[in-house]
Amino acid sequence: MKVELVSYTKDGERVVAIASKMSRSRKGWDYHEKTMTDEEVEVWIRDAIIHGYWSPLEHSSYTFSIEGISRVASHQLVRHRIASYTQMSHRFAKPVDEYYQPVTPPSAEKRNEELVKKAYDDAYKYYYELLQNGVPEEDARYVLPNGVNTNIVVTMNARELYNFFALRLCSRAQWEIRAVAWKMLEEVKKVHPRLFKYAGPNCIIHENFIRETPISLDELNDKTEFLSQRCVEGVPRDGILKCIQNAKSILNKIK
Amino acid sequence: MKVELVSYTKDGERVVAIASKMSRSRKGWDYHEKTMTDEEVEVWIRDAIIHGYWSPLEHSSYTFSIEGISRVASHQLVRHRIASYTQMSHRFAKPVDEYYQPVTPPSAEKRNEELVKKAYDDAYKYYYELLQNGVPEEDARYVLPNGVNTNIVVTMNARELYNFFALRLCSRAQWEIRAVAWKMLEEVKKVHPRLFKYAGPNCIIHENFIRETPISLDELNDKTEFLSQRCVEGVPRDGILKCIQNAKSILNKIK
Amino acid sequence: MKVELVSYTKDGERVVAIASKMSRSRKGWDYHEKTMTDEEVEVWIRDAIIHGYWSPLEHSSYTFSIEGISRVASHQLVRHRIASYTQMSHRFAKPVDEYYQPVTPPSAEKRNEELVKKAYDDAYKYYYELLQNGVPEEDARYVLPNGVNTNIVVTMNARELYNFFALRLCSRAQWEIRAVAWKMLEEVKKVHPRLFKYAGPNCIIHENFIRETPISLDELNDKTEFLSQRCVEGVPRDGILKCIQNAKSILNKIK
Amino acid sequence: MKVELVSYTKDGERVVAIASKMSRSRKGWDYHEKTMTDEEVEVWIRDAIIHGYWSPLEHSSYTFSIEGISRVASHQLVRHRIASYTQMSHRFAKPVDEYYQPVTPPSAEKRNEELVKKAYDDAYKYYYELLQNGVPEEDARYVLPNGVNTNIVVTMNARELYNFFALRLCSRAQWEIRAVAWKMLEEVKKVHPRLFKYAGPNCIIHENFIRETPISLDELNDKTEFLSQRCVEGVPRDGILKCIQNAKSILNKIK
Repeated sequence: MKVELVSYTKDGERVVAIASKMSRSRKGWDYHEKTMTDEEVEVWIRDAIIHGYWSPLEHSSYTFSIEGISRVASHQLVRHRIASYTQMSHRFAKPVDEYYQPVTPPSAEKRNEELVKKAYDDAYKYYYELLQNGVPEEDARYVLPNGVNTNIVVTMNARELYNFFALRLCSRAQWEIRAVAWKMLEEVKKVHPRLFKYAGPNCIIHENFIRETPISLDELNDKTEFLSQRCVEGVPRDGILKCIQNAKSILNKIK
Repeated sequence: MKVELVSYTKDGERVVAIASKMSRSRKGWDYHEKTMTDEEVEVWIRDAIIHGYWSPLEHSSYTFSIEGISRVASHQLVRHRIASYTQMSHRFAKPVDEYYQPVTPPSAEKRNEELVKKAYDDAYKYYYELLQNGVPEEDARYVLPNGVNTNIVVTMNARELYNFFALRLCSRAQWEIRAVAWKMLEEVKKVHPRLFKYAGPNCIIHENFIRETPISLDELNDKTEFLSQRCVEGVPRDGILKCIQNAKSILNKIK
Repeated sequence: MKVELVSYTKDGERVVAIASKMSRSRKGWDYHEKTMTDEEVEVWIRDAIIHGYWSPLEHSSYTFSIEGISRVASHQLVRHRIASYTQMSHRFAKPVDEYYQPVTPPSAEKRNEELVKKAYDDAYKYYYELLQNGVPEEDARYVLPNGVNTNIVVTMNARELYNFFALRLCSRAQWEIRAVAWKMLEEVKKVHPRLFKYAGPNCIIHENFIRETPISLDELNDKTEFLSQRCVEGVPRDGILKCIQNAKSILNKIK
Repeated sequence: MKVELVSYTKDGERVVAIASKMSRSRKGWDYHEKTMTDEEVEVWIRDAIIHGYWSPLEHSSYTFSIEGISRVASHQLVRHRIASYTQMSHRFAKPVDEYYQPVTPPSAEKRNEELVKKAYDDAYKYYYELLQNGVPEEDARYVLPNGVNTNIVVTMNARELYNFFALRLCSRAQWEIRAVAWKMLEEVKKVHPRLFKYAGPNCIIHENFIRETPISLDELNDKTEFLSQRCVEGVPRDGILKCIQNAKSILNKIK
């Protein structure tokens, strides 16, 4: 699995902050562009997020190339409707030879890993035979496994990313899309640390909507106390911290 | 494959027509509701469609239960973002025993049909063995074929249906989602014939945007002359009629 | 102001519940349609909402005719993008004579009410004079007041309604759109009480995401204790209950 | 009126072309990034547009600051739902003193221009008096004219821009939003001429869907022959060219 941030709004943090401020100001863009300090950028972003005033975050956009994920994961990914996708078509781009690299779930170890591999090899043989018998690629692929690898280009804005992270960083998310989400988070934090400081699974997002001092993923520690009795998925207060660590540990299990 | 219209806006044609008229009138809903005749309903709908004034069509909604399609088809279906989906989760609903009924493409006949069946059976054996070895369902399903059957509940409004039909009734659309589209069209025409009279693949939609007298799928015949030099997919004028017939013939090839 | 529910998914509560259940089941629509009891409908709806599993709520749709609101309010309304609108066009439907009934804010009492009335009368005179001088309607209307009345047909699904209510029932929402929201809530609760039982401003929605036993607007009383330290808008725990009452009191101030 | 492109996807043309190509290729982003020539970029973009294969265009985003337009225009603008907006709030940012600069329609000349000015001055006096009497800003503004100026930050991707242009460059679009559209087109053509070469009003877009050799706004001349019998709005073949010129002439009439 490879998750690469291939394009984004370079001045995205400033754009979000200026747009936020313009909603409260009579002055135009050029004035704010010239006068807004870096400290102000941080304050306007933080305020927008803490008060659930999400719309200015839409002005900053991120394009990822996600390669080598299964069609199980891509099928879930494209369910996020406020986003743009261009996916490798198995109708036109045959996953033959070295391009056939289906994904093996980390839960399948040892004997099961072998079994999965065998299943994948057998499926490939059937696929190839069908192709050779003249069945069109778009039909032969019906016998390929769900785990077959695909590539997809995805664009989301910062607001949608917050929503995507809320759902997919969570331990209840399926492991592969969860891994994609944690990798995407790493990528955007590198370039826009202030904009994504408060991004996290729903337990974090919901907690920050109801508490006075916000918490962030990076500052979580054993002393962090949650006000929430439970997260939205039903994990009780005392289990939330551990649950987040579990969710993130997927990064150690995949290649 | 089963495509059932399970719920829809019963008075959808009137709702669309009244909404259309209200954009041009100072009077309120109740007045139009009482005074609008059936002839008027037809005129307002036709006018909206012929002039590409699509927004009133959004007020009429259609919910389908689509059962026994492959995940190849469902993956394409959910790419239509202006729609609502609830899909059978293979994480929670195991496709075991009589529920395992993967889809065989009609292009795979005789010997190839046997081959596909064997591929499906083998995949199932691996799947079942993985389950028995303790691999969670959501991971074991990686070895299931792309053709594995799924159910999905879909809601689209009439405007989005026009767009969906434009793309998916077309002969260039993959055969399975094309079959779904033609069946959906049959369903909605039964209940709202006036609203979907001009629905069709892009060749029809685009032709109607540029010609004086609109044409409709039901009235197409050997004497129909297209003004378009080519359809958007590149089929030349003389080939369009035949291309539409081919596209629809999928209904005879599937069960 | 008149807010009328003119069309909706009659069996919306069942549709939402069945769709929810189908995501966890291998059986098809017809089976659930026949076997689902009314108690089950309630349980599936409640579960979906409490766990933030919103997507099945999209299958139930509601169309309102909202008449006699100002363009101040309609401008805010159409900012909700996951919805469908058909608005009376001031380009084509002149608000002349008895149709000119601009909205007076309830905060403008006595002397100020007179002042507003005079401002509206003067604007109308200018408007009419411009029309008579040959200025097209679509341009003459530039001098009409923001308070000028308009009609709009709006369709939202149940999920979007929850979101709309979260933002617009809140005391921070502008009074006129707040009144529209409270009236819309009354309308949908009459027809689908189970589906909208937990609808409310963000303080209620966010509270229910983090507490074990959900609270609802109808059951709020002096003994209701909020777990939230503050609502997302910054109102502290002790002030939330009163804030909700204030928000709703707009219904007593408007006609 | 000021229309400024304040941020955009710098490498947007390459991003669109690479995404397009990836849907047909088994190779990853890095490979295409390194090997794609400028000529190829042009071909992939052109092909995507001519075949209505719009989705890759969504990966390139454009943020505009639009200042000094009326609320008549902003109300129409925000009806485009696949876009992001942050608007100056008249609840918080009083348009007082030098910030009160309502828009005068160019159709109001001489005597009518005076009349509009007087109407605007009178409205302002009422507004100010209401403020001084203690009416809150958000309510006093009900007496301000529809023509009152506002600022708005807008982000659209290239696909949505094509759609926006199709509707709003057209002579049937209201003059002010039409002027905004033509100015936006100028801005994006400066930075991405290849991506927006075929942008135009619906008459151009629809024509290109049905003809073999595409036409573009810049290449239109007296010899251009339209295949369309009429545009979607009803203008007959012979009138289309002149209609486009009229539509664009709004740029000469506004400041």
